[in-house]
Amino acid sequence: MRILGVDPGLTRCGLGVIDSRPARQAALVAVDVVRTPSHADVDVRLGLLADAFDRWLDEHRPDVVAVERVFARNDVSTIMGTAQASGLTMGLAARRGIPVAMHTPSEVKAAVTGSGRADKKQMTRMVTRILKLESPPKPADAADALALAICHLWRGAASSGSTPGAAKDVDARLAARPAGAGLTKAQQAWAEAIRAASS
Amino acid sequence: MRILGVDPGLTRCGLGVIDSRPARQAALVAVDVVRTPSHADVDVRLGLLADAFDRWLDEHRPDVVAVERVFARNDVSTIMGTAQASGLTMGLAARRGIPVAMHTPSEVKAAVTGSGRADKKQMTRMVTRILKLESPPKPADAADALALAICHLWRGAASSGSTPGAAKDVDARLAARPAGAGLTKAQQAWAEAIRAASS
Repeated sequence: MRILGVDPGLTRCGLGVIDSRPARQAALVAVDVVRTPSHADVDVRLGLLADAFDRWLDEHRPDVVAVERVFARNDVSTIMGTAQASGLTMGLAARRGIPVAMHTPSEVKAAVTGSGRADKKQMTRMVTRILKLESPPKPADAADALALAICHLWRGAASSGSTPGAAKDVDARLAARPAGAGLTKAQQAWAEAIRAASS
Repeated sequence: MRILGVDPGLTRCGLGVIDSRPARQAALVAVDVVRTPSHADVDVRLGLLADAFDRWLDEHRPDVVAVERVFARNDVSTIMGTAQASGLTMGLAARRGIPVAMHTPSEVKAAVTGSGRADKKQMTRMVTRILKLESPPKPADAADALALAICHLWRGAASSGSTPGAAKDVDARLAARPAGAGLTKAQQAWAEAIRAASS
């Protein structure tokens, strides 16, 4: 299974791809941080992010996308950009039929380090060790995206949907989807209904 | 000039297209509300919205997209879905080089009715009158998207970017863009830099 972890943001959007290996091992495939200029208009920044994210989906063809869950209670000054970036990446992945899972920062920390309160240093150290890298992933703020992907791999049946508590088995969704399609039958029926209604 | 107004939302996303006519007149081109099923996962809903919105861009080829500005202080229970939907539509428009303007609800009310505190009934009545429709636009909650488009037409030099106070002249951006491209030269330079950095 190939997992693309997304640490959403407008100024920096971390992207990290890992492949699962037997015995819960994981291998690094690609990691980077997409930056958009803070002095550009928000729509232009989102357009640049959309292009970059679609290129990653084209190039790496992940089976699952794991996105950090954004909470409305986060810092108000950055919440809008983060929510917009997360909505954009989620929509672009979902329209290709790629299941999207969401994990909270503390879920990610707990999965990777064993503690939901781990600091950045501990997280980077564990990501480096888990992926058997010779040095910490670069750029430094890309480690979070890899940690998200590792968290998804290890948590297995991961929560999905943005409503806390509405846990869904994203791997079951992945298994249930018909070959060549990305949506379950029910989801396809909805999609067709919406397409019919708007055409 | 053709303007696509977007009233962003996951459960209902209003879309309304108008054409400008001489003497500040406006003509209705198309209006609808895209709905996604509330029991579906957020990523699937965003994917459906992405497909629907891209179809509207393909079909109607607007010169400008006017999106309701979402504030972080809005109702917390719906803010995330609204922000995600707005980010998605803004990114999809911007990547095509279509300028995106944002207007606050009170700007829209003031532009359309003369009062920033107009109620839904007054708004619908004015939209119906401005567009010279025989009956109010249907579905009923589609009037907001048309009001956004009318607001953009009448306000002319509209604000852009999600930071209140950072007003930009979106029509100047529209005029300045090179033929066949959607971004200004500076924006193209950023886009190329980002593409180069991530390829």
